[in-house]
Amino acid sequence: MNNVRSSLKTPFLAADVIIELMDRPGRPIVLIERLNPPHGMAIPGGFVEHGLESVERAAVREALEETSLVVRLRALLGVYSNPARDPRFHTATAVYVAEATGIPKAADDAKAIQVVAVEEIPLNLAFDHNLVLSDYLVFRAEGRVAPLREES
Amino acid sequence: MNNVRSSLKTPFLAADVIIELMDRPGRPIVLIERLNPPHGMAIPGGFVEHGLESVERAAVREALEETSLVVRLRALLGVYSNPARDPRFHTATAVYVAEATGIPKAADDAKAIQVVAVEEIPLNLAFDHNLVLSDYLVFRAEGRVAPLREES
Repeated sequence: MNNVRSSLKTPFLAADVIIELMDRPGRPIVLIERLNPPHGMAIPGGFVEHGLESVERAAVREALEETSLVVRLRALLGVYSNPARDPRFHTATAVYVAEATGIPKAADDAKAIQVVAVEEIPLNLAFDHNLVLSDYLVFRAEGRVAPLREES
Repeated sequence: MNNVRSSLKTPFLAADVIIELMDRPGRPIVLIERLNPPHGMAIPGGFVEHGLESVERAAVREALEETSLVVRLRALLGVYSNPARDPRFHTATAVYVAEATGIPKAADDAKAIQVVAVEEIPLNLAFDHNLVLSDYLVFRAEGRVAPLREES
């Protein structure tokens, strides 16, 4: 067993959360400006802690840490794991759609917060978050989760 | 970046596949008897290779390696990541529902294959695979994916 473990290398696992602000007209979403590289705007999220928490718990914790919002997870949009999606190293992320109310406030890895109407999502997000949010727009409109992608 | 990487410890990431045999009456599923610990029957699957493949690709590869079946992934059932789900160490798995035709043949980490009617799923599967398959039965009957679980 320890042999398995020491030779084992799998992608680093993260959780990201698309937070819909339910108490605002048009249900806008929350983006953060990243403090750490890769810089740029992104969906809130972060790494899952080994041995300590499930992916769902990590999602709720990271949303709280970065946006100060208590979120309620509503659905798993998809798992994004293309080996090239993160410029640092291979990461996989489970992306949840969640809801919250109140005023987001940047903290932790978030340098600033942006509340964005779904018609005005910036085109230059970090990681593969533009792909994630294009899947989210389909989910929001039609209820379909992200397509499975076997190309990589 | 290298500092982030060296101090970072996230759950090991796997992919598992519930394979429906489309050319048999009642669309039974494929279970394997595990060669390596933890022993017992389980859904086919295995670890995602860092830097080399997406979770979807790992799912298709592991299904082929363990059952000799070429599968077509149909849906993401859920991500299972309770820190206690694997007796070895903390693993998270993305579980897919897939379809295949033909005759499964055990190989790699599979010591034997069992083709099982959904009414006859054994109750003592390895890992949390009984939970996974109870979620699958709901999916199969009603189309709903696994519920999100924030309790751990």
